[in-house]
Amino acid sequence: MNDKVIVISDCDVPMMNVQWGRTKILLGPGSEAQDPGVMMKITEYAPGGAHDWHSHADQCEVIFVLSGRGLTETAAGKREIVPGDMVYVPRGVRHATYNIHVEPLRAIILKSPPDTEPGH
Amino acid sequence: MNDKVIVISDCDVPMMNVQWGRTKILLGPGSEAQDPGVMMKITEYAPGGAHDWHSHADQCEVIFVLSGRGLTETAAGKREIVPGDMVYVPRGVRHATYNIHVEPLRAIILKSPPDTEPGH
Repeated sequence: MNDKVIVISDCDVPMMNVQWGRTKILLGPGSEAQDPGVMMKITEYAPGGAHDWHSHADQCEVIFVLSGRGLTETAAGKREIVPGDMVYVPRGVRHATYNIHVEPLRAIILKSPPDTEPGH
Repeated sequence: MNDKVIVISDCDVPMMNVQWGRTKILLGPGSEAQDPGVMMKITEYAPGGAHDWHSHADQCEVIFVLSGRGLTETAAGKREIVPGDMVYVPRGVRHATYNIHVEPLRAIILKSPPDTEPGH
């Protein structure tokens, strides 16, 4: 465990490509700042990109939209998400995220507990 | 525990006044979405506002700047923080946050584990 404050600038952390766009880990495995309780990423869903139906058996997830426009889909249907919207996904609940706009859908992603590895 | 996805719009959650500005809880105690692992707030440090030296004995904290300009202070000194900067504060580490700009310093605050009550 670190015992000092760490400041990380978003622009200093490179993006990794994922199937639905790009992502970077600011807090969690593989990052300078690690926390046993939570993982924080910044993800850009590419225009037309989709993170199709999936669930995380043992992790809760939060999606907080920073910019762009998209859709969140759950068993209850689809709903538009815009900047300032927070989507809370309890563990084990199936969901999907779509970017239906021409700009990246940029969002903070939290997962609790964190992934155990940096990849996806 | 909820078993369905919850979407909360930042603009639908009222701010509460705190000594250094205003804050609202999007995820955690007192909010519609509750998570055993993490608490998420949006805090605005008022122009000239200061969250003076303090620490959280049993909680890690993350401050992610959305807009404005401020300073984070630790035992290592002061450092300017701007949008896209993430400050990670391990549990028990003393720190302070200042807004030295004319606009609110707006930030996402994560605490892990969450507070047990909505106040503060």
